[in-house]
Amino acid sequence: MHKIALLGAGRIGRIHAANAMARPDLTLSHVVDPFGGAAHALAAETGAQVSSLEAVLADPSVEGVIVASSTDTHLDYSLQAHAAGKAIFCEKPIDMDLARARGAADVLKGARLFIGFNRRFDPNFLALKARLDDGSAGELETLQITSNDPSPPPVAYVKVSGGLFKDMAIHDFDMARWLLGEEPAEVFAWGSCLVDPTIGEAGDIDTARTVLKTASGKLCVIGNSRRSGFGYDQRIEAYGSAGLIRADNVVESTVQVWTEGGAQADRFQNFFLDRYKDAYVAEMAHFADVVSGTAKPAIGYADGVAALALAEAAAESMRIGRPVKL
Amino acid sequence: MHKIALLGAGRIGRIHAANAMARPDLTLSHVVDPFGGAAHALAAETGAQVSSLEAVLADPSVEGVIVASSTDTHLDYSLQAHAAGKAIFCEKPIDMDLARARGAADVLKGARLFIGFNRRFDPNFLALKARLDDGSAGELETLQITSNDPSPPPVAYVKVSGGLFKDMAIHDFDMARWLLGEEPAEVFAWGSCLVDPTIGEAGDIDTARTVLKTASGKLCVIGNSRRSGFGYDQRIEAYGSAGLIRADNVVESTVQVWTEGGAQADRFQNFFLDRYKDAYVAEMAHFADVVSGTAKPAIGYADGVAALALAEAAAESMRIGRPVKL
Amino acid sequence: MHKIALLGAGRIGRIHAANAMARPDLTLSHVVDPFGGAAHALAAETGAQVSSLEAVLADPSVEGVIVASSTDTHLDYSLQAHAAGKAIFCEKPIDMDLARARGAADVLKGARLFIGFNRRFDPNFLALKARLDDGSAGELETLQITSNDPSPPPVAYVKVSGGLFKDMAIHDFDMARWLLGEEPAEVFAWGSCLVDPTIGEAGDIDTARTVLKTASGKLCVIGNSRRSGFGYDQRIEAYGSAGLIRADNVVESTVQVWTEGGAQADRFQNFFLDRYKDAYVAEMAHFADVVSGTAKPAIGYADGVAALALAEAAAESMRIGRPVKL
Amino acid sequence: MHKIALLGAGRIGRIHAANAMARPDLTLSHVVDPFGGAAHALAAETGAQVSSLEAVLADPSVEGVIVASSTDTHLDYSLQAHAAGKAIFCEKPIDMDLARARGAADVLKGARLFIGFNRRFDPNFLALKARLDDGSAGELETLQITSNDPSPPPVAYVKVSGGLFKDMAIHDFDMARWLLGEEPAEVFAWGSCLVDPTIGEAGDIDTARTVLKTASGKLCVIGNSRRSGFGYDQRIEAYGSAGLIRADNVVESTVQVWTEGGAQADRFQNFFLDRYKDAYVAEMAHFADVVSGTAKPAIGYADGVAALALAEAAAESMRIGRPVKL
Repeated sequence: MHKIALLGAGRIGRIHAANAMARPDLTLSHVVDPFGGAAHALAAETGAQVSSLEAVLADPSVEGVIVASSTDTHLDYSLQAHAAGKAIFCEKPIDMDLARARGAADVLKGARLFIGFNRRFDPNFLALKARLDDGSAGELETLQITSNDPSPPPVAYVKVSGGLFKDMAIHDFDMARWLLGEEPAEVFAWGSCLVDPTIGEAGDIDTARTVLKTASGKLCVIGNSRRSGFGYDQRIEAYGSAGLIRADNVVESTVQVWTEGGAQADRFQNFFLDRYKDAYVAEMAHFADVVSGTAKPAIGYADGVAALALAEAAAESMRIGRPVKL
Repeated sequence: MHKIALLGAGRIGRIHAANAMARPDLTLSHVVDPFGGAAHALAAETGAQVSSLEAVLADPSVEGVIVASSTDTHLDYSLQAHAAGKAIFCEKPIDMDLARARGAADVLKGARLFIGFNRRFDPNFLALKARLDDGSAGELETLQITSNDPSPPPVAYVKVSGGLFKDMAIHDFDMARWLLGEEPAEVFAWGSCLVDPTIGEAGDIDTARTVLKTASGKLCVIGNSRRSGFGYDQRIEAYGSAGLIRADNVVESTVQVWTEGGAQADRFQNFFLDRYKDAYVAEMAHFADVVSGTAKPAIGYADGVAALALAEAAAESMRIGRPVKL
Repeated sequence: MHKIALLGAGRIGRIHAANAMARPDLTLSHVVDPFGGAAHALAAETGAQVSSLEAVLADPSVEGVIVASSTDTHLDYSLQAHAAGKAIFCEKPIDMDLARARGAADVLKGARLFIGFNRRFDPNFLALKARLDDGSAGELETLQITSNDPSPPPVAYVKVSGGLFKDMAIHDFDMARWLLGEEPAEVFAWGSCLVDPTIGEAGDIDTARTVLKTASGKLCVIGNSRRSGFGYDQRIEAYGSAGLIRADNVVESTVQVWTEGGAQADRFQNFFLDRYKDAYVAEMAHFADVVSGTAKPAIGYADGVAALALAEAAAESMRIGRPVKL
Repeated sequence: MHKIALLGAGRIGRIHAANAMARPDLTLSHVVDPFGGAAHALAAETGAQVSSLEAVLADPSVEGVIVASSTDTHLDYSLQAHAAGKAIFCEKPIDMDLARARGAADVLKGARLFIGFNRRFDPNFLALKARLDDGSAGELETLQITSNDPSPPPVAYVKVSGGLFKDMAIHDFDMARWLLGEEPAEVFAWGSCLVDPTIGEAGDIDTARTVLKTASGKLCVIGNSRRSGFGYDQRIEAYGSAGLIRADNVVESTVQVWTEGGAQADRFQNFFLDRYKDAYVAEMAHFADVVSGTAKPAIGYADGVAALALAEAAAESMRIGRPVKL
């Protein structure tokens, strides 16, 4: 039984707390949140105690720390937790500022730090990766990543989000790196504001198409929209020399209604916590192994920096209107 | 180039005429129909001449005859055409009266007579049969035949149709025989009038479930309704020792619309002349081979009688409320 | 927090124990099993204590009892638990003997007794039921229930199972009653031994087709096989006056591989504990409501008896070779 | 009955000849081909006479001309046929040289000239267009065109093909213009040689990703590969403000085989003459209307030039490594 602490009792923090509690090998011992109310509520539900970051880091019985606080604290808390010898589960992105993130790379590259790119743990994408690795479609040539949210966030969120590429597409940049088996060498991106004009007024885009090219010529297209109109649209197509492997959207049930209009399938899942429920559970299982020392982080600090670098390059490409080399 | 004559210039006769004309090896030379208007119209379109049955049979240059006239003439015309040495393409059913049909079996069993059970020529069912034959799902054990019309016929038609089993399910009895690879030994059927009460008042049913059992214990369920509510519902599931082979309905296009309600596929094909367009073409190709002597009829007189016997047994089972042996 | 006890620490008992523990409103306080080892192992994992039936029933703090012991004990334990004033979650079937089950009906009809027909809690079948109830396909006319196990059980199990109808199809009889909205009035069944000859030698069948008819003429076909060859095959088609509602099998992931042979979807789920995982969780949520008094049992003793009566009638129909009235 | 002549008796010319002959309102009167053998063979099959371009143009009874000869003759023959007052059905592309094609625009813009972009006549893409136009998915925002050939052509063909963008993607540029409802204002393209190194040695690419942007910010991605590995891969996804409309690939039959490995659908259609069979028929129906004067060409000379301009811009973008304005 390993004690872990949670920094940040917001929506994603609560998910991680529930998944940690469901494991026989983890105990959630401390909850830290600047909003005392959130911390106390979660503590009451879980039996953990409300605490401070200092106390958590100073307590040698705490072996791991989940960093689910606001993005601007991710890097600092990770550095402090690493200095205190804790295993770290840090939510993405590692930071908004690439230079700052790179500056910490020497310190954190050897840390027991796991970046929570949850999509790598989704059973559908894992199955796609397994087929890719076993050569079911031959050698990978091109990739199509479709990643559209059900509906746009409030513009207040957009303003502090770091922009579509760092906030939303960063997951896709990580997926691309995971699946391509080769680092993107060049990035080109175009973005538009087609969904919500207030997003454009806030200086961001809501629709983008990004193309990545590797040194060997593999091509990857990432399609993003803040609003699909039909649910959480998360699909991947991997074209290989012998065919195609695809992972499709998830529907709420297998039910279809056949009428004169045709066959109507059930709705697509609409909420990321439903769509990635199993992925969050699997992430926590992996973190339990990291805490206990039986596994090295599957996604380390360097992966967090690399995804951030792609996001920054895409934003730069859109700004200057031509490809950017990495 | 082989000359053939068409008996019956109604809807199905016109289909056969068009398919015959599109073939380089067939010429439609004569059209015979008691309604002179229909015969003249079709003759004008095709370049055939309007004629009489006697003239057609007496003309040695006519090598084949398509019997697409009313059901009560099928058997007589076939017998006459056989006596005149013609190859015959006879629409189903061979007759309404099983005893009469059996009475002609000795004469017609060796005839160059092809019964138009068009579904055996449907590309989807042919593909299913091919997978069954190549053992893709192991040894066949059970069969599920779903066969629902888009909407019920006028009650005037129902009254002269011979009843659901002889008029509609007869196709399914033929499919069962074709796919089971073994004759049904026993039949059980239940029918209801759920779609249109005037059908019940006319002494018929519009909904039925029939179960066939072979000597070795294979089971086949046939589901029939005069109204699917969504299109022409023609599906087959064949369960074998190693899995399942299924042929599904045909949609009008591959288009789907994904909205908040889920994925809406395009409509199912609704009209039997669309659904079985390719089958009718393939039937005529086969008849051309029968006429030219390069093929024996794939579906002979005995098949027509056997399907009729199953239809009569099903009707009898429904009447007496228990299984009927064949 | 309500205390409940578990009778039977076998495979299904352990599932219920885990689901009960995951609920904040239930505590598993006692485990009873004739095999001390199983009881002690489960007690160690859950913090419950090993106990005896007598002690559990005598303990007024225990509010509910899960009867997951062997089938021959279901009825006795339920009667004792009811006499002791406990809420009861009883696994299906209520008993092997219909007369005995009916004999207890007067006593148990008002009991807080919930029969664990888990399929009613499956999200796919619930979605189908919801569409049926909201009239998405009009008025229900016919039903097709497909229910095939992945592979046959050991013949030793078959021998004590009560036969295919009571052991396996009983779920489908309950589904039929739940969906038809009307009691079956007549049953016809044919069975064969096509999968495993030793099942036949043991006096049972492994393949069956059962047809139910209601007073108003609704027809329901149930197809059963002990071996699908491709996974857990659990599908329903409900035909209504305006179309069809179907619930399909569940695949392991949304991944497809497209090669020269066509599109290969991922495997179908193969294990009932995977296929019905969510259903078992939902069952326990319902039982928690029954224990706390906020809900009446959704599936009561009379439902258990009615499903058993259908199973017995189907077996009788197969034996005598004609329909059996209920 | 309108007389038309065919220039070019190669593979596509023969398709057009067959489709013209099947129409009651067209007669194929002349066939012209520099290879006398091909012309004579087709003439023998169709009853047309072998002729010369001069004779065809000089014959006032010939109302229309199908230009299915080699690409380098398309423009000259069209100009001559236009001068002779004929209706013209010209295969794509109108020419390899954009400047030359633009040079003829003034002369041909008012011509009764129909460019054979067959995909606009495919039933699946027509259905998608109809849903787009009726607002089924709201206002169009982005487009994904997937267009992969089953397998690469011989390198000898590649060398004279004009390159992937003019030879293959030109269809997709036309589809984009047809569906976007707005001219692309900027093009970006990356290409690679991943399929066949001899294509690269011949100076061409076999894999490309092209992005189009319109003035209002709509984005369109075109994915091309000379080899899909699974069949003719022709799909479109149109994202609108209220959802997604997609047209999928066409399978050879509706058959699926379900085994332990999952559900295997039938093969995808592999040959463009199968995939677009209906489109070629519909094209000829449209040309018949153009010849008879009941319709104006749905796709005119300006469309041919515009698609060529996009192809040239894409090739230029790939060459210079940044977007090209149109």
